[in-house]
Amino acid sequence: MQYSIYFFIVVSIIISALSFIYAAVLHRWVKKQPSSNKRIAEVGGLIRQGADTFLKKEYTVLAKFAGVIALLILIFLPTPIWKGTFTTNLTMAIAYICGTIFSGIAGVIGMRVATLANVKTAEAAQKGIKPSFLCGFRGGAVMGMAVVGSTLLGVALVLLLTNDTTPLLGFSFGASSMALFAKAGGGIYTKTADVSADLVGKVELGIPEDDPRNPAVIADNVGDNVGDVAGMGADLFDSNVASMAAALVMGISLDRVSGGMVNASMVLCYAASGLLASIIGVAMARMGKNGDPTKALNNSTYITTAIFAVLTAIATWIFNFQWRIWGASIIGLAVGVIVGIATDYFTNDNKKPVQQVAKASESGPAFTILSGVSYGFISTLPALVGIAISALLAYKICEPIGPGYAMFGISMAAVGMLSIVGMIISNDAYGPIVDNARGLAEMGGLGEDVIEIADTLDSAGNTVKAVTKGFAIGAAGLTVISLLGAFISEVNVAAAEHNLQGITGFDIVNPVVFFGLLVGTAVPAVFSAMLMLGVDRNAQRMVAEIHRQFNEIVGLKEGKEGVVPEYSKCIEIATNGALKELIPAGLVAIVITLLVGFIGGVEAIGGYLAGNIVTGLLLALFMSNSGGLWDNSKKYVEAGNNGGKGSVAHKAAVVGDTVGDPFKDTAGPSINTQITVVSLVSSLMSTIFLTMSLFK
Amino acid sequence: MQYSIYFFIVVSIIISALSFIYAAVLHRWVKKQPSSNKRIAEVGGLIRQGADTFLKKEYTVLAKFAGVIALLILIFLPTPIWKGTFTTNLTMAIAYICGTIFSGIAGVIGMRVATLANVKTAEAAQKGIKPSFLCGFRGGAVMGMAVVGSTLLGVALVLLLTNDTTPLLGFSFGASSMALFAKAGGGIYTKTADVSADLVGKVELGIPEDDPRNPAVIADNVGDNVGDVAGMGADLFDSNVASMAAALVMGISLDRVSGGMVNASMVLCYAASGLLASIIGVAMARMGKNGDPTKALNNSTYITTAIFAVLTAIATWIFNFQWRIWGASIIGLAVGVIVGIATDYFTNDNKKPVQQVAKASESGPAFTILSGVSYGFISTLPALVGIAISALLAYKICEPIGPGYAMFGISMAAVGMLSIVGMIISNDAYGPIVDNARGLAEMGGLGEDVIEIADTLDSAGNTVKAVTKGFAIGAAGLTVISLLGAFISEVNVAAAEHNLQGITGFDIVNPVVFFGLLVGTAVPAVFSAMLMLGVDRNAQRMVAEIHRQFNEIVGLKEGKEGVVPEYSKCIEIATNGALKELIPAGLVAIVITLLVGFIGGVEAIGGYLAGNIVTGLLLALFMSNSGGLWDNSKKYVEAGNNGGKGSVAHKAAVVGDTVGDPFKDTAGPSINTQITVVSLVSSLMSTIFLTMSLFK
Repeated sequence: MQYSIYFFIVVSIIISALSFIYAAVLHRWVKKQPSSNKRIAEVGGLIRQGADTFLKKEYTVLAKFAGVIALLILIFLPTPIWKGTFTTNLTMAIAYICGTIFSGIAGVIGMRVATLANVKTAEAAQKGIKPSFLCGFRGGAVMGMAVVGSTLLGVALVLLLTNDTTPLLGFSFGASSMALFAKAGGGIYTKTADVSADLVGKVELGIPEDDPRNPAVIADNVGDNVGDVAGMGADLFDSNVASMAAALVMGISLDRVSGGMVNASMVLCYAASGLLASIIGVAMARMGKNGDPTKALNNSTYITTAIFAVLTAIATWIFNFQWRIWGASIIGLAVGVIVGIATDYFTNDNKKPVQQVAKASESGPAFTILSGVSYGFISTLPALVGIAISALLAYKICEPIGPGYAMFGISMAAVGMLSIVGMIISNDAYGPIVDNARGLAEMGGLGEDVIEIADTLDSAGNTVKAVTKGFAIGAAGLTVISLLGAFISEVNVAAAEHNLQGITGFDIVNPVVFFGLLVGTAVPAVFSAMLMLGVDRNAQRMVAEIHRQFNEIVGLKEGKEGVVPEYSKCIEIATNGALKELIPAGLVAIVITLLVGFIGGVEAIGGYLAGNIVTGLLLALFMSNSGGLWDNSKKYVEAGNNGGKGSVAHKAAVVGDTVGDPFKDTAGPSINTQITVVSLVSSLMSTIFLTMSLFK
Repeated sequence: MQYSIYFFIVVSIIISALSFIYAAVLHRWVKKQPSSNKRIAEVGGLIRQGADTFLKKEYTVLAKFAGVIALLILIFLPTPIWKGTFTTNLTMAIAYICGTIFSGIAGVIGMRVATLANVKTAEAAQKGIKPSFLCGFRGGAVMGMAVVGSTLLGVALVLLLTNDTTPLLGFSFGASSMALFAKAGGGIYTKTADVSADLVGKVELGIPEDDPRNPAVIADNVGDNVGDVAGMGADLFDSNVASMAAALVMGISLDRVSGGMVNASMVLCYAASGLLASIIGVAMARMGKNGDPTKALNNSTYITTAIFAVLTAIATWIFNFQWRIWGASIIGLAVGVIVGIATDYFTNDNKKPVQQVAKASESGPAFTILSGVSYGFISTLPALVGIAISALLAYKICEPIGPGYAMFGISMAAVGMLSIVGMIISNDAYGPIVDNARGLAEMGGLGEDVIEIADTLDSAGNTVKAVTKGFAIGAAGLTVISLLGAFISEVNVAAAEHNLQGITGFDIVNPVVFFGLLVGTAVPAVFSAMLMLGVDRNAQRMVAEIHRQFNEIVGLKEGKEGVVPEYSKCIEIATNGALKELIPAGLVAIVITLLVGFIGGVEAIGGYLAGNIVTGLLLALFMSNSGGLWDNSKKYVEAGNNGGKGSVAHKAAVVGDTVGDPFKDTAGPSINTQITVVSLVSSLMSTIFLTMSLFK
């Protein structure tokens, strides 16, 4: 049977509507859960307010930034406006703005629910682990459904309304801009608060985590939501849109050759299947008899994976898609799982690396750092090899279909890997909800038993988070490879329009390409360094503020009844600092891209993107994994190993954990976004780089 | 005028003879310097014995290793022996062995003099800073002369005797094998001893550095020589040979097209000019009136640079070489200086990075690490951009000469950069000599004034070392780019022989190339991680031994007259452990190279080398620079800033320094060698990869 593309667009819109309906149902369910503790409600309210403050500020700054970019797009992209391309440029600018808005809406929905679910989860823990788990999970699932629903809806609408691929890149660029703010800005926010709260609270004063006397405690809890709910959501929205955009750009360019829209249809159909699989997976998620939350989370992921494989197989059969491309998608999915397992090995406290680092900590913090860095370096190998092999296999499987299909195969592997992203985000957003719930249980004085339940749920969140982070990086890896393919498509379209010679590839031995490759290599390092220095500077400001409050507010240190710190001051510092520190880092990445493009043209950009991708992946994997490893080493020591709490090893492990925090929550995961932003800027600028550059 | 290649070979041999003669003169001069202190002579003797122990052991293991490799070469390389290539393979195997022997001889000479000059320098310090400086510098210069002399002699002889380029790669591979053992093995040795001595001595017992009671103190002093004299010498011997080999491979292949041997002649002529310039530079080195040793060292480098530029300009004019190629060499030289200056900015305690890290240390060790890592990441940008631009310019300048000249231009930029390597090694070997001298002055009880002079000389050594390390990495960068060119030449020669299609380049978008690129990216990370873990494990063994001695040897801790520790036990542990930990790391790099080659063939190897080069440079720069930065931050704090000795900042800075030690002296600089080894293995295996591989 041959269906029109409009059929698939309509199906996509229906399934995204379904996901929104399901998100609403889950939201109502969470809202209906009982809550009675006044103190928890109060603190929960403060967290919610803090999160709102950040989002408002972030969206205000983003709106200005996006306004400027949209204006630049209107004037220059894809072709300077004086060449009579007003309508095209306007469409592009609108698509860009829609990209930011769709991502933003998903972020708001997710945050609203997360800052509601944390309270409900804390209260539910009084009734046992199962209801509490369900509450946290369903709260997270709202974010999952909202993000993937708006991805599919947005992409389908852009396609329906413009009937063109270039605006898709504009939409994707909008999503990337949003992700840059949400992920990198949120990453700075969360670690500023976390590090400052720990430094003054735990280290200087020796008061427990989540102690309400600490002026940074609310900012810290807000940070979990800002970084891990909104940030991770925007990041995966971005990857998801980018992978679909790249696949559609290539698919439609293939469709133009062969007639019909079968490849584009396939992209939509697979993405819709993934969303449907995620809905079913979420609906089926329940904690088994043994009450192990990690297993519950992982099982729902596996179920979703299986459903996706079956659904797409059926669709491929019904709609007569290429089985080879189906194979490529399944390879992508499999690699996602492999990268996840590899990440798990390096960050799981049952395995050698975490235990070795704990042992090394006995000789002092320098050895914690050295061994952690070493295992972090080694951990990049399986993931990079996995991505390399999957790209190679996807390419080789799809190559026989015809010219151009090989690269399309890689992009479909990325789509396959990201198909279950709804489930991934649900698992991921679960983390900060239960983390918050733990804090609330403590602050609400719910007693040891309840805190222990919250702890169990929290620890499962951390384990699952390591895996989903590996997954996110793997997905980003395949996505950016396919963005490289999309870049070539764009360049060739532009070249044809301007009667210039197109390109077929980028030869490493060409010095212009190699020039780009070397410069591209440095960018992720510089970008992540700037973010980390930003956390450092921002934390210094906040530490000064905390000191001021403890000195000036009478009775605060002693915990006198009725004396509360000025939480909002810390929230303000975290918010303003995050955005202030983020923008230079983002600009440096973009400016270097433009310089490389104007110096070396599209060929230098090809090398530049490749360099950026490979070292970006390397550093992202290194920093995420060593950060997770240090976190778990510290927990391993705290559980009584290598001397336990208070020992030399413990102090050293705490240093490792503090170093690891900005590694894994600020710099590491933000590199994905940096790569996507740079790739999209390059694609959008392709005409300009093609026609104006110093060297060719 | 047109001169025969034999003219240049003879000139090269004469100038290398000259450098050996000059080395002998310097050696005699050093030997003639007075020494009278018995205690110094005794300790100096122990250091010399320890160094001999290491070299003997190292050469024994290396001999076995080299024997196996030589046998493999005989059987398989460049073409399997059963195809009737016995003579070619035998030549190759002999060239390989000669490469290890030439490098080894230079190492022995350098070590012999260094372990003599340290004693003389310590004694000379009693007469003032100027004679002491001269003694240290001239001792180092013997190593410089010996290394560069044997490079030029070896290359000239191989060319004279075989009249072929492939054996040059064999010779170069021999040099790399040696460098792998000397640099990576020496790096593990030196840091094992350093870290263990500090950990037990300074941290646990609070006894001063270089205290003779410490059983690891001799091993520590031996380590300076092993790592920084023999190791750095072998490393630069390796880079130097590799750059000449790459340039000659490409130059001769161009000469085959145009007739004559003008390009090959040029390579030899420039290398000889560089050696001559270094001889003159060393002879002119003297400390000025102000008595600033850093200035004296840097001035002699600048003088050498200027002499090289003038000599090669004259040679280019007389022998009618291409002026464009001269330009490429001068660009290489200029970039060497730029990379050096950039390195200096990030590691100099007058500049912001070091001071910021010292300030961050006030908040504890985690912030020392975070800010140091961040500045280390940022420090990679100028160097990578410098290498990128110089490669691009060299290529573009030489492109108009004719096909193939562009890549040859890059290789000549590398030759230019390495031309003054004789001077660089002299400066570099000066470091450990004066470092040792400081220790000897302390152990010999020469008094505060003398120790202060030794300290001044030592600190100049550290500053200069940061610059020369940057230089070495920059040189390695350009060299390995030209090795990529040499690889293509080799593949095409092999392809022509087997009637296969040759290659013109490596397209990043080709998934086989991209596969290689991704895997190549991971290798330097894994290699350096294995070395660092090796240091960690080895240091644990040595710490246990030191504890044992302090516990079992009565009166040792109290410093009872006549009680000496068993220094040799520590030396043994450092020696055995270094070689044991090194071999797996080297093998992993080589095995992954072979796997990539057999899976993806020459195209995958092209991508693999590119990935290896770019991340190798990134990580080498990052680790060397952040290591240097931490070292100097500690010194900056010890000089009384940010709280001075004993403060929180000081403790944190010590942690940074301990992390930085294996970064900058083990892992960072060994990556160069790893890249060269992998590049040469690839070139040597090109025929096999071309004809046998899974994917094409």
